[in-house]
Amino acid sequence: MVVANVGDDFEHWGMHISPDLDTLMYTLAGVANGETGWGRAGETWRVLEEVSLLGGENWFRLGDRDLAVHIQRTARLKSGVPLSRVTIDLCRAMGVQIPILPVTDNRLRTIVDTTDGALDFQTYFVHRRCEPVVTGLRFDGASRSVLSAGIGAALEDPGLSAVILCPSNPFLSLDPILAAGDLRRRLQDCSAPVVAVSPMIGSKAFKGPTAKIMQELGHLPSSLAIAEYYADLLDGYVIDRADARISDEVEKLGIRVRITGTLMDTLEQKQKLAAGVMAFTEILG
Amino acid sequence: MVVANVGDDFEHWGMHISPDLDTLMYTLAGVANGETGWGRAGETWRVLEEVSLLGGENWFRLGDRDLAVHIQRTARLKSGVPLSRVTIDLCRAMGVQIPILPVTDNRLRTIVDTTDGALDFQTYFVHRRCEPVVTGLRFDGASRSVLSAGIGAALEDPGLSAVILCPSNPFLSLDPILAAGDLRRRLQDCSAPVVAVSPMIGSKAFKGPTAKIMQELGHLPSSLAIAEYYADLLDGYVIDRADARISDEVEKLGIRVRITGTLMDTLEQKQKLAAGVMAFTEILG
Repeated sequence: MVVANVGDDFEHWGMHISPDLDTLMYTLAGVANGETGWGRAGETWRVLEEVSLLGGENWFRLGDRDLAVHIQRTARLKSGVPLSRVTIDLCRAMGVQIPILPVTDNRLRTIVDTTDGALDFQTYFVHRRCEPVVTGLRFDGASRSVLSAGIGAALEDPGLSAVILCPSNPFLSLDPILAAGDLRRRLQDCSAPVVAVSPMIGSKAFKGPTAKIMQELGHLPSSLAIAEYYADLLDGYVIDRADARISDEVEKLGIRVRITGTLMDTLEQKQKLAAGVMAFTEILG
Repeated sequence: MVVANVGDDFEHWGMHISPDLDTLMYTLAGVANGETGWGRAGETWRVLEEVSLLGGENWFRLGDRDLAVHIQRTARLKSGVPLSRVTIDLCRAMGVQIPILPVTDNRLRTIVDTTDGALDFQTYFVHRRCEPVVTGLRFDGASRSVLSAGIGAALEDPGLSAVILCPSNPFLSLDPILAAGDLRRRLQDCSAPVVAVSPMIGSKAFKGPTAKIMQELGHLPSSLAIAEYYADLLDGYVIDRADARISDEVEKLGIRVRITGTLMDTLEQKQKLAAGVMAFTEILG
């Protein structure tokens, strides 16, 4: 089961867009655009071109195939179907077998406090290209949100092998998941091992503004700082060989460490890392 | 000034669609699809194909270029801009010089009462292909609607040459315009000549279900029946040569008649008919 962030969700062109759910779905369906890192392969841009000609908003690049997903999602949400159910049906239509669940069906929105004021996530991330200095993050609606059906049961399932916090921006992508409902407490209480894979190698993130935001929020950008940030949750931590020297300090936090190659440029690297993480959880479990 | 029907407007895929406004705009912009009689030339169908694959509604054929217009219209309506203003701006972006105005900015919807129950216009017209037997028509919201800004002033302008009721389905296309606000009374009081062009030749309409609906509503399908139907409004009436024999009966209603060729298969035919109608109004005025 993949539990996904909905803090990036937003309304654009009157449609409900769920960028993280879509990236997961497109990737697992094998139709993700490998060149851009977002959207769909073989995309066309007819609608966006025409909306631009009509003077409409074009800062968020919605392709024609991608747009169809938002149209269908929005129509079903408007008819009262919860996001988790819509996502399951979209995944089925795209041939994705692995269940992808939004962490909550409730409205949960990441607000980025910056020196330019409070910005909603997409305004900060896409429109403003992460340029404003971040002073804090809030997850609107998180505390009163309810976890999607199935997440609680999965975490209490005695057969659960492990919970993996995938390598991603802790502040922008993991925190809004962990802030939903009582998920953080449930992970603390979870009997299966909780393992994070660091999104950094040395002082650099695989991609995106992780290092920049860490510095702006007063953290040293490093895998160690992320281990400290999630110390209350983690049983295990996977770091890159280049960071082997921090291993002892992480272990002092009561967290077991696995050193491996964490860069994921190729499918082979991804599969190798995933297999290594699963082997690590077996030792922990 | 072209005053257009909004009774066919509807919501689909979460968007506000105004088929009559769009057909006028596309036609006057020179981008209408001449083969289908609706939508845009050079259209592509990527979004519709994808929505279909995802299990979405595909009975209303929205092309990619067409969709861009609905996206932009809907976004602006949601931000509080009235439909008439949105239409003016869309027309400007598409290079249309002639002002096209929705008859009202208020919600006005054609409801078709049939032997299969009450159907909204598009369900009757597109989804059910005009097959159900019509027992009556209603124009939801018409009586409390307000005419779009500019229509009242145009009708009271001493320089107004004429009002033309264009050849179209009297029940489905003209009546919902005439039902808006106080337009019917304003046309009765209008000092400029009011002229209709019959949409029929003999017992057949140029296109669409006019004859079928007239019969279902108890009218003989003919240009004479339409003249009788609009007798309270008309100063002049334009009929095809094939209907010359009804001329005397129409004149008995106090309506002057012009006999000409009313079929409009080519642009040349359209221009010739338009010039003939304008010459006729000069005689009446």
